[in-house]
Amino acid sequence: MLPVAVDAMGGDDAPGAIVAGARRASDLGIPILLVGAPELLTDTGGLAVHPASEIIEMDEDPAQGVRRKKDSSLVRCAELVRDGRASAMVSAGNTGATMASALLRMGRIRGVNRPAIATPLPLPGSTPTTLLDVGANAECRPEWLVQFAQMGSVFASHRFGLVNPRVGLLSIGEEATKGDTMVKETHALLKDAPGVNFIGNVEGRDILTDDVDVVVTDGFTGNVVLKTLEGGVRAFVRMMKDSLDGHPDLRRQTESVLDPLWDAMDPDAYGGAMLLGVDGVCIISHGSSSPRAIINAIQIAREMVDVDLVGLLRAAISAP
Amino acid sequence: MLPVAVDAMGGDDAPGAIVAGARRASDLGIPILLVGAPELLTDTGGLAVHPASEIIEMDEDPAQGVRRKKDSSLVRCAELVRDGRASAMVSAGNTGATMASALLRMGRIRGVNRPAIATPLPLPGSTPTTLLDVGANAECRPEWLVQFAQMGSVFASHRFGLVNPRVGLLSIGEEATKGDTMVKETHALLKDAPGVNFIGNVEGRDILTDDVDVVVTDGFTGNVVLKTLEGGVRAFVRMMKDSLDGHPDLRRQTESVLDPLWDAMDPDAYGGAMLLGVDGVCIISHGSSSPRAIINAIQIAREMVDVDLVGLLRAAISAP
Repeated sequence: MLPVAVDAMGGDDAPGAIVAGARRASDLGIPILLVGAPELLTDTGGLAVHPASEIIEMDEDPAQGVRRKKDSSLVRCAELVRDGRASAMVSAGNTGATMASALLRMGRIRGVNRPAIATPLPLPGSTPTTLLDVGANAECRPEWLVQFAQMGSVFASHRFGLVNPRVGLLSIGEEATKGDTMVKETHALLKDAPGVNFIGNVEGRDILTDDVDVVVTDGFTGNVVLKTLEGGVRAFVRMMKDSLDGHPDLRRQTESVLDPLWDAMDPDAYGGAMLLGVDGVCIISHGSSSPRAIINAIQIAREMVDVDLVGLLRAAISAP
Repeated sequence: MLPVAVDAMGGDDAPGAIVAGARRASDLGIPILLVGAPELLTDTGGLAVHPASEIIEMDEDPAQGVRRKKDSSLVRCAELVRDGRASAMVSAGNTGATMASALLRMGRIRGVNRPAIATPLPLPGSTPTTLLDVGANAECRPEWLVQFAQMGSVFASHRFGLVNPRVGLLSIGEEATKGDTMVKETHALLKDAPGVNFIGNVEGRDILTDDVDVVVTDGFTGNVVLKTLEGGVRAFVRMMKDSLDGHPDLRRQTESVLDPLWDAMDPDAYGGAMLLGVDGVCIISHGSSSPRAIINAIQIAREMVDVDLVGLLRAAISAP
């Protein structure tokens, strides 16, 4: 197997956390190619390093960053996949720049209008719900959302072993007449879309339930939903901890019972999102990725290469 | 003071829960006019009843319902306010039909392009965040959102005693360049909007924090956010209770400590949302409203009448 190209410079705790995760993935037998500035990568444990002298910062303008920094770790990662020298890329860096690098260097799968970012939302006790697009396209057209549904179905099938995953369209009511113009038009198209087990509109309250496997939406709404959930869970946990503050014994006991729950809800457990529709496997990890998140991301990259996800997506896409 | 018109027939537990709440509000000294079918309103404790023979069902098409059922409790409530026979209306019925009744019978405040539904989101330990629009307008124009910001500011000021409330525009990044076209255009307009303390874009994760008082968005995104939070909290509580299931003692202790938290987060504590921009006070309560939610809704209706919120909104609105 070709190595997985790992952007050693991207992420809040890069390169430390990234290299640590990559080393442990390598110990599991996955070939790794670290990409970054060799002088900053000291503790690699013998992993191969592909040199890249520039870094696209977390808050840098993605398009400018990719255009100007041709020797950045992100751009180089995407080129290694394009050139057949790596099987996949993993980055916890600037999300927009990861997307732009992958899109510009690997190109789109033939027939795909727009790539989309698919994120599994942890749902302890049952299969995660895959939400897409969570931010690649702030404005969408109905035909793009149909392709998101097709790509999301293929992804959820192979990522979570689902047969014929149930696809819902995010709206503000179950009826086909609810929503804005774009959603209503998408609803009509999805009813007849090949490869999509369309169960109709779903609402915000359905996302974290076992009633739907893939939730399709535009990148603006999807990004707002993802961040609202992150913020909601954070607020909830904080308020709960505040309430338990005067009760140290109870807090300790409760935490020991609830820790496996937090663990199961930790986004790190899923290793990140996947950019669907580009001509190569590209895993986008959370900026705050721990070594554990990176191991998981690399494992998922490997799995997606092993099942030839890109080939499956190519076959599933309706002509534009 | 003119009585508050209470739609006795709207809500999942109507008329029982509604009448029970109205009676308790009456005990607090607020004059009440129940609106509904007299033969179904038996246990009113002597409250005045304005007869209305029809009911718009919870799942009925709002526009059709309001057009066809001219003697429905909802339409009659709005007419009582329009005709100066009630000071405000409260309903836990069909949200769309409540909105349509208020809009068609009371009319808009002069200069308002579109009314919006404002919902306070509970935030234990600090002032709730007011989110609008949460569903009145699935598609919006930038000028409407500017008015939402102006109306939301007036509402948050008088509802929660805030001086110069901080207004954020919901987007997918803090930078003015982030978001879809509508959001970018709105951002530019909000910077110079009179009566708006605009702090810039906010993201989903900021909503449930003390960093912003009023969050402005279109009715599609707002509705998705509201329901995502509802669903998220529900999933979270369920998972937590499942985790504690094998530990009955711990579960009991934890619940006794956390109950005040659930209580503070209970939407019932805020009595519902307010339709801003119609020419009268209209409180829209959750379909599942308990008597407690109805008491709170009636009290808020009274407060909003007392401060002349409609007059304040009229003064705050920029010409269209």
